[in-house]
Amino acid sequence: MKIAILPGDGIGPEIMAQAVKVLNVLGEQFEMESADVGGAGYAAHGHPLPPATLALAKSADAVLFGAVGDYKYDTLERALRPEQAILGLRKELALFANLRPAILYPELAGASTLKPEVVSGLDILIIRELTGDIYFGKPRGVRECPDGPFKGEREGFDTMRYAESEIRRIAHVAFQAAQKRSKRVTSVDKANVLETFQFWRDIVTDVHKEYPDIELDHMYVDNAAMQLVRAPKKFDVMVTGNMFGDILSDCAAMLTGSIGMLPSASLDAANKGLYEPSHGSAPDIAGKGIANPLATILSAAMMLRFSLGKTEQAERIENAVKKVLAQGLRTADIFEAGTTRVGTEEMGNAVVKAL
Amino acid sequence: MKIAILPGDGIGPEIMAQAVKVLNVLGEQFEMESADVGGAGYAAHGHPLPPATLALAKSADAVLFGAVGDYKYDTLERALRPEQAILGLRKELALFANLRPAILYPELAGASTLKPEVVSGLDILIIRELTGDIYFGKPRGVRECPDGPFKGEREGFDTMRYAESEIRRIAHVAFQAAQKRSKRVTSVDKANVLETFQFWRDIVTDVHKEYPDIELDHMYVDNAAMQLVRAPKKFDVMVTGNMFGDILSDCAAMLTGSIGMLPSASLDAANKGLYEPSHGSAPDIAGKGIANPLATILSAAMMLRFSLGKTEQAERIENAVKKVLAQGLRTADIFEAGTTRVGTEEMGNAVVKAL
Ligand SMILES: CC(C)[C@H](C(=O)O)[C@@H](O)C(=O)O
Ligand SMILES: CC(C)[C@H](C(=O)O)[C@@H](O)C(=O)O
Repeated sequence: MKIAILPGDGIGPEIMAQAVKVLNVLGEQFEMESADVGGAGYAAHGHPLPPATLALAKSADAVLFGAVGDYKYDTLERALRPEQAILGLRKELALFANLRPAILYPELAGASTLKPEVVSGLDILIIRELTGDIYFGKPRGVRECPDGPFKGEREGFDTMRYAESEIRRIAHVAFQAAQKRSKRVTSVDKANVLETFQFWRDIVTDVHKEYPDIELDHMYVDNAAMQLVRAPKKFDVMVTGNMFGDILSDCAAMLTGSIGMLPSASLDAANKGLYEPSHGSAPDIAGKGIANPLATILSAAMMLRFSLGKTEQAERIENAVKKVLAQGLRTADIFEAGTTRVGTEEMGNAVVKAL
Repeated sequence: MKIAILPGDGIGPEIMAQAVKVLNVLGEQFEMESADVGGAGYAAHGHPLPPATLALAKSADAVLFGAVGDYKYDTLERALRPEQAILGLRKELALFANLRPAILYPELAGASTLKPEVVSGLDILIIRELTGDIYFGKPRGVRECPDGPFKGEREGFDTMRYAESEIRRIAHVAFQAAQKRSKRVTSVDKANVLETFQFWRDIVTDVHKEYPDIELDHMYVDNAAMQLVRAPKKFDVMVTGNMFGDILSDCAAMLTGSIGMLPSASLDAANKGLYEPSHGSAPDIAGKGIANPLATILSAAMMLRFSLGKTEQAERIENAVKKVLAQGLRTADIFEAGTTRVGTEEMGNAVVKAL
């Protein structure tokens, strides 16, 4: 089995090194091949998603991705900026289903800015559609405003859109995920304002007929943002579009206070996937050896489970992570008085040892 | 001076009655005229924004609005649903600047789901553009998908758009508001993905040149949602578009835990405005006499300040509200052990007495 390793920028290479180390001690035969992506891709090959990197990702059975972005690329034109790599990979690999768990580990309850009783035991799975919506819709650009009160002025514009089958397939992912959990799905939309999301609501409602065992409710996105803050534990599986999912999944991740712990998976129709930590490239701490590698290590576990069919190995890694937390080991981002502060590499080694 | 009173649905009439009572004891000459809106408009006249209601709102110097919406109207076609009234009023009255303070009253710190140290003293002003963006952009609808992999399928679609002068005027509102506060503005966008919001960022940056005394920073909307949860007190004035503002202002309001306390103003270019509580119509508690009237009473205070030029009277009301809180009076939504639980009318009477 071939895994494409794309470390990226900032802390990406450091955290990836730990995940690779963990994969290497599982006793499996993985072929791992690395390539430049993001700012590193631009620096070495003039493009954030160099053709060879894309070809590798396409040929691999799964992609393990670090993080992209650095201040030094902020002034590049948009098409060359690091984050275009991730948008390009999603589109080119047709990774339409983004699974983002927001889990609060009992040992880390203190890291949350929310009161313990509001978040302890939090375990939400946000399913974000990832290849449609206003992220890719056309036409888009800056043009002369064609009509209305601002006619003739310059205006920026984008197109939000979802086709029926795009909604159907992500709804199926959500209902099937719920079947393995507590059998409840909240579909988040803005059906009271947007045609796209009235259509979304209609189609999700229709797909739901095939899942009589699942309870479905619909919630407006503004209310969902409120309820995430007010009573997040009421949610189980949430499904939503690309734009709302971007906002809500980050909000939900931050509820845990330990975004350095949260993995993510982006899957295609055949469960081939790209796996990456939910946090960013943190250029301010890059190279210091203090970044938390656990989200990347847990992303590797998700990869084993969803794309490589190695559920047992996935569980081994997840249990090893729980063990190092129970041992009191903490990187700086989740450090609290009474625990032991460790660096990136020590944390990786501790997971290896716990395996 | 003429005030249009639009109580609406659910708890709207109850909370409005208290605000009107407060306005009546100020010793000013206001001409107040009521009209049906929302579900009440539909029930009495077949439309959520009946022509007479719109005419009244247009002829008045300011509009005081309760809340709209009730389960019984959920099955109406979209154009007849209660919330269309609020969208219609915004558009028809050109109320492009929505000011939504998120303030945590010291007495109510316990109501928040966030830890006291994270939110105590919170005082954010969110400025949401209210007449542009994907809320009103055309074309929109359900059509046959014109091209791409889903060609020929049905798709829902909407148009996001902002013209240059729409961005300029809301940026001016934000910078001028910041001049009266701590001189910092955070503009929230998604410039890394959306053409509309790269354009937004460019124009806001340009308007900023006229305000050398103000510090401006730009933040992506997903990061803004995270930072609101992580460290909300870092924000002072936030300015953003209609869609992102809808989500972030509700999220920020909920951080306080006391959304029943938060007023809002929606202003046109001449500071004529519509004032309404940030909470909804709460049909589940309508008619029980337990709703919190303070957000509506504080909305009346905002109205006195922004549209009617009565700063002193606005302050009188605001101080009276602080006083009743200090007295320990609480409606059910903000009740805590050790305080005195009161109903809607008692709360209104207490404010009148404190004046
Ligand atoms: C970097 C950016 C384009 C991306 C997105 O908006 O999807 C990121 O925020 C994410 O959520 O993965
Ligand atoms: C009711 C709805 C159309 C409205 C909006 O989305 O603007 C509401 O959520 C608000 O924020 O006032």
